[in-house]
Amino acid sequence: MSKEGVFQQTTEQVKSLYKNRSVTICAVGLGRIGLPTAAMFASSGAQVIGVDINPEVVVTINEGRSRFLDEPGLDKMIEESVKSGKLRATTDVESAIPAADFVIICVPTPVDPAKTPDYSAVTGACRTVGKLIKPGCVVIIESTVGPGTVENLIAPILEEESGMKAGSDFGLASCPERSDPGNIIGNMKTVPRVVGGINPHCSQIVADLYESLLNVKVFRASDPKTANAIKLTENLFRDVNIALANEFALLYEKLGIDTVEVITGCASKYNFMPHYPGAGVGGPCLPSNSYYLISEGVKAGNIPYLVRMAREINDRMPEHVIELTSEALNEVGKTIRGSKIAILGVAYKPEIKDLQLTPMERVCSGLTKLGAMLNIYDPMFAGDTVFGLGVRRSLTQAINGADCIVIGTAHAEFKRLDLKLLEQLTDSPAALVDARNIVNPHEATKAGFAFRGVGRRNLNPEQ
Amino acid sequence: MSKEGVFQQTTEQVKSLYKNRSVTICAVGLGRIGLPTAAMFASSGAQVIGVDINPEVVVTINEGRSRFLDEPGLDKMIEESVKSGKLRATTDVESAIPAADFVIICVPTPVDPAKTPDYSAVTGACRTVGKLIKPGCVVIIESTVGPGTVENLIAPILEEESGMKAGSDFGLASCPERSDPGNIIGNMKTVPRVVGGINPHCSQIVADLYESLLNVKVFRASDPKTANAIKLTENLFRDVNIALANEFALLYEKLGIDTVEVITGCASKYNFMPHYPGAGVGGPCLPSNSYYLISEGVKAGNIPYLVRMAREINDRMPEHVIELTSEALNEVGKTIRGSKIAILGVAYKPEIKDLQLTPMERVCSGLTKLGAMLNIYDPMFAGDTVFGLGVRRSLTQAINGADCIVIGTAHAEFKRLDLKLLEQLTDSPAALVDARNIVNPHEATKAGFAFRGVGRRNLNPEQ
Repeated sequence: MSKEGVFQQTTEQVKSLYKNRSVTICAVGLGRIGLPTAAMFASSGAQVIGVDINPEVVVTINEGRSRFLDEPGLDKMIEESVKSGKLRATTDVESAIPAADFVIICVPTPVDPAKTPDYSAVTGACRTVGKLIKPGCVVIIESTVGPGTVENLIAPILEEESGMKAGSDFGLASCPERSDPGNIIGNMKTVPRVVGGINPHCSQIVADLYESLLNVKVFRASDPKTANAIKLTENLFRDVNIALANEFALLYEKLGIDTVEVITGCASKYNFMPHYPGAGVGGPCLPSNSYYLISEGVKAGNIPYLVRMAREINDRMPEHVIELTSEALNEVGKTIRGSKIAILGVAYKPEIKDLQLTPMERVCSGLTKLGAMLNIYDPMFAGDTVFGLGVRRSLTQAINGADCIVIGTAHAEFKRLDLKLLEQLTDSPAALVDARNIVNPHEATKAGFAFRGVGRRNLNPEQ
Repeated sequence: MSKEGVFQQTTEQVKSLYKNRSVTICAVGLGRIGLPTAAMFASSGAQVIGVDINPEVVVTINEGRSRFLDEPGLDKMIEESVKSGKLRATTDVESAIPAADFVIICVPTPVDPAKTPDYSAVTGACRTVGKLIKPGCVVIIESTVGPGTVENLIAPILEEESGMKAGSDFGLASCPERSDPGNIIGNMKTVPRVVGGINPHCSQIVADLYESLLNVKVFRASDPKTANAIKLTENLFRDVNIALANEFALLYEKLGIDTVEVITGCASKYNFMPHYPGAGVGGPCLPSNSYYLISEGVKAGNIPYLVRMAREINDRMPEHVIELTSEALNEVGKTIRGSKIAILGVAYKPEIKDLQLTPMERVCSGLTKLGAMLNIYDPMFAGDTVFGLGVRRSLTQAINGADCIVIGTAHAEFKRLDLKLLEQLTDSPAALVDARNIVNPHEATKAGFAFRGVGRRNLNPEQ
C-alpha cells in the first residue's frame, strides 16, 4: 500500500509503484471474473484482497482452492498466490476497502425477468465502496454495464457516499472484462483490455496498471461510456450473428438446405466469419448484454431494433428444438407425452460447468410440460441435480431405453458418439435431435434414427 | 470443341480435355462479371466466345479493350486473349451457343422497384440458350439467384426449350460469382469457387473445370440451391453487419460516443470482425441479394426478418446523411435551401467507376429537392454527367464557395484532404459532413468546420 493515494501521484510515480508491485488491489465480487482477476494480479506480485459476501467462497479461496474447476490454470494460480501470501479473501469489506489503492468491481449485472438491466449488485457494491475508500483510491468497474452507467449512475453514488469528487479526489475507470468462461485465464493473459477513465490521468493510471502487472495490451478508450460501448458492441456482434445463423437455419430447414454446409462454404470467403445455429444462447453475457444497450437506446429515443430482434430470435430457439423433437418422434410414431427422452448436455457451452441462462433449461422444462420423461446426462454435472432432476452418471444410463435423444451441448464426449451402438441402446425406432450441429445427418439416418437437427436438411422429407 | 458432348464423357475423359484446353466456353453476358470470366478462361488457353446483346460491348472487346478501366489486370488480359485468338465476342448467339461445350450465364439479376427479384435477364438468356445448346453441353449459372431458382425455374426452361433432360442429356450447375468489383481479376484468381451441380457427375465436371483451367480451389456444394444459399449467406452476412454498424452509429451519435473508436476497440478482440457505418450500401450485390432470399422465405412461409430489417436500416442511411447535413448547416446559421453543397464522391465504393444503387444518388436527389445547389466531384467521373448533373473536373472547383461539403465515397484522394486549406476555399462558416468515416472530427472542428459524421460524436453538443 502506497503512503499517498495513487490517484494524487504523477503517472511516473505510479509506474514506479507498479514496477515494485507496491500496490494493494481489492477485488469486489469473487465470481467467475472476480476470482481470476484477483488471482492474476496476486500472481503478478501485487497484494490482493478479494471480497465476497459469501463466506463459503471466502473459505475455499483461503484454503488455496478454486471453485471453478472448469477454468484451466486457475486452481494452481490460487494455490500459489494464497501460499505466497499475495492473495487472501475476506467478507470483511470494512477492513479490505480502506487498505486498497485500487478497488476492482466484478459483481454480476444480470437482467430481471422483464429484461431490464439489474444494476443492484453494482450499485450496492459502489455504495459500500464509496463509504470506505481512502482518498486517492482508484475504482475500476469490470462489470458489464450500459454506456453512460459509470458516468451517470456509478460516479454519483461513489461521490455521494465518499463525499469526494471523482476525477480529482479519487479515480474512476471502466475496464470491462472481456474473457470467455472456460478460458478466463488464457484470455486474461492475451486479450487486450479496454480502459476508459473519467479523465486522461485516470485512464493512464489504469491502463498502466493492466499493462504493467498483467502484461497485456490496452486499448485506451476516450471515456468509460466508450469502453462500455466497446464491450457491448463486440458481444452484440456475436449475439446478432448467432441470431442470423439461426434465422438462416430456420429458413434453410424449410428449403431442404443444410445450414452447416452453407456456413462451411461461406467460410471459404475472405470476408466471412462463421457463426452457427443452435438451441439458443446462454451464459452470463450474451443473453443479457443486449438489454443494457436497448435500455440506453430507449432512454435516448433510439431503439436498436436489429439487436432486439436478434435477441428474440435466439430466445425462441429452445422452442424450435422442442418442435424438432416432436417432429422426429412423430416420424417413428411416438409422441412427446410418454416418451423417454435422453438429454445429452445441459451446460450453456462445451466443457463448462455452468447453467447460467442455458437454453437447455427451457428445452427440458418444455419437454417435461409436454409429458416427456427426461434422463439427463452431462459430463460436467454427472450425479448432480439440475432443473430439479438428477443427472445420470453415464451416457449409457441416460440413453438406455430412450425413445429420443436430444443433444443440447457440444461437449467433446458427444462428438465421439458411436451412433449405431447408441441406437441399439434405445427403444427402437428412436429419434435423434441435434441442437448443436455435431452429428452427421446421413450417419444418424443410416444408424436407424429418425433425425432432426437445427438448420439441417430433413432426409425423410416425405415423412 | 470436343467431338462428343462433354457431359456424356467420363470425368477422366473430361479431365484430359481440360489438360489439353480442348474445350469451348461461351460466356453469356459480358458485364463486370461475364467479361473477366471470359477473359480468365481465354487466358487459361480455352477457346472462349463472349456473347452480349450490346453491339458496342462486342466491338470494344474485339478491339482488345476492356470497358472496365477500374478493374486492374483486365485490360491486359483481354488484349492478349483477343490477340492470341482465344477470345472473341459476338452478338450472334445462334452461332456461338451450338459451338459451346460450356455455356456460362453471367447476366444481371436485379430487383425491381418493389424489391421483387427480376430474373427476366436470366430466364430470357436460358430460353435462348436452351433452344441452341448441343447435347452434352454443360450450362453453368454464375448469376446470383435465390436458392431453388436453378432447380425450379432455370432447369425447366432449359429442358422445355431444348427438349432434353437436365442431368442426363445436358449438364447444369450453379457456380455463383464471388468477386468484388474493383478487384474482380484478383478475386477470380484467389477466392475459392462454390460449385453445386444438379447431380454428382455434373458437380464433378464443373468443379474440375474451374480447378483445372482457373487454378482455384472449389467448394463442392450438394446441389445448386446450396451453392446459391452460400452466395446469399455470405453477402447477407455483410449487409446485416453493415446494418448493425449503422444501428450502433445512430444510437452512439445520440449517446455522444464515437462509433469508429468503438469498432476499432472491438477489433482488438479475436472473435470480432469490423464493419463500418456509412451513407448506405450500393452496388450490384448487397442491396439486391437480400430480396432473393426474402422472396424464397415468403414462398416457404418463413420470412428472414433480421435480413429484411437490416436492408431497411441500410436503405434509410441516405436520409440520415441529409439530416446530418441539415444539422451541420444549422450550426453555422444556414439552411439546405440556397446552400452550395460540394459532394465529394458518388461512386458506391472507393476507386470504382460504378453508380449502381449508390446511396449517394438518394443523398443528392434529397438535397436538391430541399433546395441545395450541388457541386459534385468524383475522381472516377470527372467531367462526366451523373444524376443529370455535371461532375467538376477538380476538388477545388467543387468546393469553391461551398457552404457545406459532404463526403460520400472514401476515395483515396479524399483521405488526404488538407482540411484547413479546404476550409479557406469555402464560404465560411461552412459545414462538413463525413458519411465515410475518413475525417478526424477533432481536426475538422479545429479547421473551422461545423462537423457531423455518421456515427461520430458531436463535438459541439450545445449547438
